[in-house]
Amino acid sequence: MGNYETMASNEIRSLIRKQVITGPTAGMSKGFTQANLVILKKEHAFDFLLFCQRNPKSCPLLDVTEPGSFIPGTIAKEADIRKDIPRYRIYRDGMNTEEVMDITEYWEDDMVGFLLGCSFTFETPLLESGIPIRHIEEKCNVPMYKTNIQCEKAGVFEGPTVVSMRPMSHEDAIRAIQITSRFPAVHGSPIHFGNPSQIGIADISKPDFGDSVTIKEGEIPVFWACGVTPQAVAMQCKPSIMITHAPGCMFISDIKDEKLSIL
Amino acid sequence: MGNYETMASNEIRSLIRKQVITGPTAGMSKGFTQANLVILKKEHAFDFLLFCQRNPKSCPLLDVTEPGSFIPGTIAKEADIRKDIPRYRIYRDGMNTEEVMDITEYWEDDMVGFLLGCSFTFETPLLESGIPIRHIEEKCNVPMYKTNIQCEKAGVFEGPTVVSMRPMSHEDAIRAIQITSRFPAVHGSPIHFGNPSQIGIADISKPDFGDSVTIKEGEIPVFWACGVTPQAVAMQCKPSIMITHAPGCMFISDIKDEKLSIL
Repeated sequence: MGNYETMASNEIRSLIRKQVITGPTAGMSKGFTQANLVILKKEHAFDFLLFCQRNPKSCPLLDVTEPGSFIPGTIAKEADIRKDIPRYRIYRDGMNTEEVMDITEYWEDDMVGFLLGCSFTFETPLLESGIPIRHIEEKCNVPMYKTNIQCEKAGVFEGPTVVSMRPMSHEDAIRAIQITSRFPAVHGSPIHFGNPSQIGIADISKPDFGDSVTIKEGEIPVFWACGVTPQAVAMQCKPSIMITHAPGCMFISDIKDEKLSIL
Repeated sequence: MGNYETMASNEIRSLIRKQVITGPTAGMSKGFTQANLVILKKEHAFDFLLFCQRNPKSCPLLDVTEPGSFIPGTIAKEADIRKDIPRYRIYRDGMNTEEVMDITEYWEDDMVGFLLGCSFTFETPLLESGIPIRHIEEKCNVPMYKTNIQCEKAGVFEGPTVVSMRPMSHEDAIRAIQITSRFPAVHGSPIHFGNPSQIGIADISKPDFGDSVTIKEGEIPVFWACGVTPQAVAMQCKPSIMITHAPGCMFISDIKDEKLSIL
């Protein structure tokens, strides 16, 4: 099967298109940026683009396709967003009705693809700086929570900010703020740390999405805006059809993580 | 008339609305972010928003109004973009036909206002770091040039990147790269320095817009993507109507320059 971690992004995408790879992409094509996907029809595209522009921390756009085009030209010129993700979810009127490995037959001439940065990108430099990441240590999904921080509304799109949480020491939190500030294209700096109830989280041990992780003595929870926000918000407005990647099954782009750093 | 430099942004906007102030806004409400304005009808709004998203260095969006709304809610909740700029230009089919001080009678129910960051914001911290800015010293407009760097196309919008140029010593150029990197919302880091011909500038002494400035012995020209780019590109597509601010007559927002820095 080859070593997925060291394969180039186009090689992995080719295996995905052939449906050799059909599951989560974490750790594949190390160093290449992975992205969340949201597909909407043109009628909602302006409002959703405006929503992302107004909420850059939770909705960091890496690429948006021309209406009707399935080519994410900015981040992977030869890719096809209808085939190059291992697993898709189809939402009709806000309900997840199907999970498929190719959306060619679902594609319509006025669809627009939104590719959004994901926290995989900043977790690599955190690890390289010696900051342990609990959900990786505990081999589970990152814990995510709905907060009382409302997104800036745009047209029909509105809703609360969803955050991901990583527990760490105070010293590591300072370094993590510095490192993630360098990556505004993938959520950037944290939006809160320390007191979950202040942002509307009643019980830190009960995430709304993902898995609960251990918070050790002396550690504080650090919260980043999360790419689940735009999906949750788009779903809430119940468009007749919306397509997303399945959790963990991301789009692997041709750009390198380090290219997204600003300093 | 009061001291315009130390007045708050809402006070200056009130004087602009009363048409007491009818000219350039440079130096007014020091510390408050000034913005470029482009108004287009909804039919072009998605493409233009996408163009800005794809070309963030030349088109750094600070705010976009809801279609039909003249309130830039993100950067100045009580402002009205139809009245709060000293002087506007009306373009019909790409031609500047009128210059007016209030656009209320031109406003249509499907218009969208785009407010874009301007280099005034990063010139303040450059000056505060002791980096001289030639066009300020020589009391003229910054020199601007069309380059051979094509913007990323979006729908009907395409064209070359326009750059502004500031000559400085090599040491100051290094510091200027650091400082402006902190301000991605207002053009960010330079896109070139040193060799004008490499980016398609034939004669540095003949800018396409603005005024020529002295380049002293031992200085190099440093080039930043410029807010004239989106206006020039929008004009080129000859929309039936487009409205912009008149050169130098900017929108003064309620946000502070320092809020736009990322580190």
